[in-house]
Amino acid sequence: MTVSFAVLGAGRIGQVHANAIASVPGARLTAIADPVAEASRRVADLHGCDIRDIDTILASDDIDAVVICTPTDTHADLIERAAKAGKAIFCEKPVDLDVRRVKACLQTVKDTGTTLMVGFQRRFDPDFRALRDMIDAGKIGEVEMVTLTSRDPGAPPIAYIERSGGIFRDMTIHDFDVARWMLGEEVETVMAAASNLVDPAIGKAGDFDTVNVILTTASGKQCTINNTRRATYGYDQRIEVHGSLGSLAADNHHKSRVTFANGDGYTKPPLLDFFMTRYTAAYAAEIASFVQAVEGKTATATTGHDGLMALALADAALRSVKEGRAVKVSEVLA
Amino acid sequence: MTVSFAVLGAGRIGQVHANAIASVPGARLTAIADPVAEASRRVADLHGCDIRDIDTILASDDIDAVVICTPTDTHADLIERAAKAGKAIFCEKPVDLDVRRVKACLQTVKDTGTTLMVGFQRRFDPDFRALRDMIDAGKIGEVEMVTLTSRDPGAPPIAYIERSGGIFRDMTIHDFDVARWMLGEEVETVMAAASNLVDPAIGKAGDFDTVNVILTTASGKQCTINNTRRATYGYDQRIEVHGSLGSLAADNHHKSRVTFANGDGYTKPPLLDFFMTRYTAAYAAEIASFVQAVEGKTATATTGHDGLMALALADAALRSVKEGRAVKVSEVLA
Amino acid sequence: MTVSFAVLGAGRIGQVHANAIASVPGARLTAIADPVAEASRRVADLHGCDIRDIDTILASDDIDAVVICTPTDTHADLIERAAKAGKAIFCEKPVDLDVRRVKACLQTVKDTGTTLMVGFQRRFDPDFRALRDMIDAGKIGEVEMVTLTSRDPGAPPIAYIERSGGIFRDMTIHDFDVARWMLGEEVETVMAAASNLVDPAIGKAGDFDTVNVILTTASGKQCTINNTRRATYGYDQRIEVHGSLGSLAADNHHKSRVTFANGDGYTKPPLLDFFMTRYTAAYAAEIASFVQAVEGKTATATTGHDGLMALALADAALRSVKEGRAVKVSEVLA
Amino acid sequence: MTVSFAVLGAGRIGQVHANAIASVPGARLTAIADPVAEASRRVADLHGCDIRDIDTILASDDIDAVVICTPTDTHADLIERAAKAGKAIFCEKPVDLDVRRVKACLQTVKDTGTTLMVGFQRRFDPDFRALRDMIDAGKIGEVEMVTLTSRDPGAPPIAYIERSGGIFRDMTIHDFDVARWMLGEEVETVMAAASNLVDPAIGKAGDFDTVNVILTTASGKQCTINNTRRATYGYDQRIEVHGSLGSLAADNHHKSRVTFANGDGYTKPPLLDFFMTRYTAAYAAEIASFVQAVEGKTATATTGHDGLMALALADAALRSVKEGRAVKVSEVLA
Repeated sequence: MTVSFAVLGAGRIGQVHANAIASVPGARLTAIADPVAEASRRVADLHGCDIRDIDTILASDDIDAVVICTPTDTHADLIERAAKAGKAIFCEKPVDLDVRRVKACLQTVKDTGTTLMVGFQRRFDPDFRALRDMIDAGKIGEVEMVTLTSRDPGAPPIAYIERSGGIFRDMTIHDFDVARWMLGEEVETVMAAASNLVDPAIGKAGDFDTVNVILTTASGKQCTINNTRRATYGYDQRIEVHGSLGSLAADNHHKSRVTFANGDGYTKPPLLDFFMTRYTAAYAAEIASFVQAVEGKTATATTGHDGLMALALADAALRSVKEGRAVKVSEVLA
Repeated sequence: MTVSFAVLGAGRIGQVHANAIASVPGARLTAIADPVAEASRRVADLHGCDIRDIDTILASDDIDAVVICTPTDTHADLIERAAKAGKAIFCEKPVDLDVRRVKACLQTVKDTGTTLMVGFQRRFDPDFRALRDMIDAGKIGEVEMVTLTSRDPGAPPIAYIERSGGIFRDMTIHDFDVARWMLGEEVETVMAAASNLVDPAIGKAGDFDTVNVILTTASGKQCTINNTRRATYGYDQRIEVHGSLGSLAADNHHKSRVTFANGDGYTKPPLLDFFMTRYTAAYAAEIASFVQAVEGKTATATTGHDGLMALALADAALRSVKEGRAVKVSEVLA
Repeated sequence: MTVSFAVLGAGRIGQVHANAIASVPGARLTAIADPVAEASRRVADLHGCDIRDIDTILASDDIDAVVICTPTDTHADLIERAAKAGKAIFCEKPVDLDVRRVKACLQTVKDTGTTLMVGFQRRFDPDFRALRDMIDAGKIGEVEMVTLTSRDPGAPPIAYIERSGGIFRDMTIHDFDVARWMLGEEVETVMAAASNLVDPAIGKAGDFDTVNVILTTASGKQCTINNTRRATYGYDQRIEVHGSLGSLAADNHHKSRVTFANGDGYTKPPLLDFFMTRYTAAYAAEIASFVQAVEGKTATATTGHDGLMALALADAALRSVKEGRAVKVSEVLA
Repeated sequence: MTVSFAVLGAGRIGQVHANAIASVPGARLTAIADPVAEASRRVADLHGCDIRDIDTILASDDIDAVVICTPTDTHADLIERAAKAGKAIFCEKPVDLDVRRVKACLQTVKDTGTTLMVGFQRRFDPDFRALRDMIDAGKIGEVEMVTLTSRDPGAPPIAYIERSGGIFRDMTIHDFDVARWMLGEEVETVMAAASNLVDPAIGKAGDFDTVNVILTTASGKQCTINNTRRATYGYDQRIEVHGSLGSLAADNHHKSRVTFANGDGYTKPPLLDFFMTRYTAAYAAEIASFVQAVEGKTATATTGHDGLMALALADAALRSVKEGRAVKVSEVLA
């Protein structure tokens, strides 16, 4: 069987998913949709697929699944429409920036019995997965502390930041998902600190660029997340998990494995500096996993509930910053 | 000039300082004091110094400086007595577990004009100092985030824990000092999470064994500290400082530089697992620095104020855990 | 323009090249040939190409280029036939095991004006290329010493070894090519030592499994190569180049970037253990480079002359072992 | 018991040994001898020992052992005189630059029953010893290939080179000893290549600055040594041993463990660049080992025979360069 895909949205992340679909056996890109003709044309030319509008796609019998890569504020509506149209759905995070809207949307998905996967590609990164597999294999015993280092090479444009929902919902949300995955237990309490150190314009836009978060589970496991919008040495993505029997650490991806030595020292190249190059393998594995779910072989690896919980942690972090206290996740989910 | 020392207390840390004094040019160990005759005898035999009681030492003309390595609850009194006796004083942290007592003691020191240095040996570790020097040289621009990983190989005996003042005052206190040193700016707010995961007996003793702390300065610089009482791979001591222009990281000390490769992978030996071996060079440099101060060549590198502030951060962290909120350092100093 | 390929030989290396062609834009796999029907069927099914015999392929107008992956003793004949048929030719190393036969074959290629590229995929490995680029950029000044570490995970079957031409012509030949590439100057003299330590059956087959070689150029640059047929920790492929201004080193590819720490130490996973996974990116880049040459945009990056010279170094090494002396390359080329 | 030492020669290496004696329990520096009054005065002042001439030292009842750090051409004579005077002898390598003279000297030592240790401090380096211990523990099975990388930060003065006996006898001699230690079996055959690339003045002095050597034992174990007189990144000292079950590698000593990351990459500091800082621990352990031997607790860890064999390998390497062939060690020992 081959799963026939339409990608909704031909922007940067839409292109990433189109490429991923093209590279995965058992997946075929049938159509692309984007209001910007030039954008959809580029994808259609590269991959030899149709250009269709969203209404047509949802009505097409030759489309099994849609990949939603449109602006965030359209996600929930499109999920509901696609669910009612009987399409399997892969939606980029987040489902919505509002917890209640997410809940309502997930209810619709549930009522229709649709397959929905929310995109958290880091769970499919080969190194991170190898690390998680070693936890599952019991190598480090009980997980006790997780340390997530996640730093962007540079801040996005202010216009992007203004409609992003803020750093916790836009950037840290990936780490919140990884935290839940690594902790293996739901987070109970969130504490966060947030500063504006990188660019004053980010502060003027009401957002932060430098944050640290502590998550605690009911059994006392802890996770810290540190984020900044600017790391001069590239896209810094590390996971460290400390357990009762040992510790695991996933290291970064440098631009090459060549070290240069002279009187200044031993120098390795900086890190890959773009999520599309850093997570190429993860995006392909993610679509491959979705294909398995569409074919009914497995459940979706990342669910609407995962999307909801990551958003809830982001809301709790923001509230913690504002109120200077530890916030229970149950408060923001109520 | 040679500075003539007496070491008060011939326990583990007293022996460390006696060894350090023996290895530092310009320092001479003249006397050791300890109520346990066997303990003082061992030091006297090893280093060829006198055994005297504390009263005698404080009255001896041939002693320039005392190193206080007695139990914590005697520190403040001994500092005051030595100050009045005109001896230069090196005191192991902490001055006292009570902020008000520390303040009173420091006032006495100030009134007598005595030289007092409080022991925070990590500031003298060659690697950490190299890192701090690179910050001072402007390599990373403005400091924005500090990440301190500090994990003991194993928990101390419960009897020790019971009189230690708790993990924040006993273990994290070193990290609080390093945090202040690396941030280069006083901490304003403390948030902390604390769990009992390593050994239930530690929880029964009213203490924690797994903690994460976020410190924030007035300008928004942040520092996280993660501690656990048990790291199976040794004594884990890492510092990472992220700045506007770059990042610095000090790595751990392995037992050797030999890597073994076979079908199981590439294995480097575990870490040095004892503070005495890990910080041997730091302890010697610390005493050498104190000697400089006694000779009047420099101010003391770590002061009574440093001791007070590290204790205040510990108190604030504990209050943060108890009250589930961000605690201002000014609250606990009042 | 798209270059239309036929792959001759559907064995392991033929599959590697078929995959590479499928992944390279501007290349299309049109036909596969193999006397073993099952083998060609597998490739045809995977890539949707025709199955044709070699005669048909050489006579086909819709084939621009052939990739020769047949047994070594057929290479020279197929090159000559393809050259006369007007096909661009990519041939896996070696052209032949006999220097005179190689010379004759290359003369035919020259006479026909055919494009011929000999496969030395390591020159297209992204890390090795980054290293070579840094030499070209003058980072290390003059190249003085090259150290090549090249160790197979395990010995091939004895049947393979018996018809391989020996370790120098089969395994070291890749290192000889890398040596010439890195030295940037022809080798003048070869010294080699060879032992049979891994498996007595290899010795019985008249071959060695453990060798060290020293190459010297006219200007005195030196290169050492160390090979073994068995490295328990994987496929060990390292290059180190020492120059007048600095040194460069390309490190290995581990199975993941995850380090596990416990009381036994810090363990990284073993190396990728198969040339197909280790050099996947190199094979694709190699075919892409060939496509450029077929389109006339560049000369071939690795030529028939490169194939000849690598073979000559192998012959010189073998003679050095047999005669216990430094052998001039000119002796074996005469 | 305390062993009372006299150090003959107060130059650089004499100071190293004086420092080592001062730091080793059970050793006492009693006297220093040097024709240059200022040189002996400096050592005497630093360590509080006597200044005596050699005749006086050899006649002194209060001297148990001499450490010979005088110019190479005096070593053999002084060994013989000290042997006859009943002193235990530690002599810096080499005993002499002439194999026959060494043999005669060792015969005298044997006849007198004197304790003689020849200085090869690398055998006492903690990392190298840890590596050797892991071989002894069977971690890598049978040793098959040893790779020694040994590069000086910069060439010594030409005047030094002129009387050094050449790079093989002066610099590689340390690697020859390490090779024998790591191979665990005598070397049978030597092949070497040598160039003059670093400084033409070295060539004019009749010496080389860039060499590669292959050693082979009777059972086929192999060792390569690569040397250069100039490594811009410091004093490069690495050992790698490949065995039937795995591989071991001892890494270099960097100036600190701090890594700096920015847009140029990740930079670790260069290596320690002086044998006195790089091998401080080794020199102390070496003297401690000699003290054990003088006290009769163990045999000397490095013997006159070790000194002879390392010199023979150097002679064989030089002959291999001159004659362009593999040279048997037996040829130069005859």
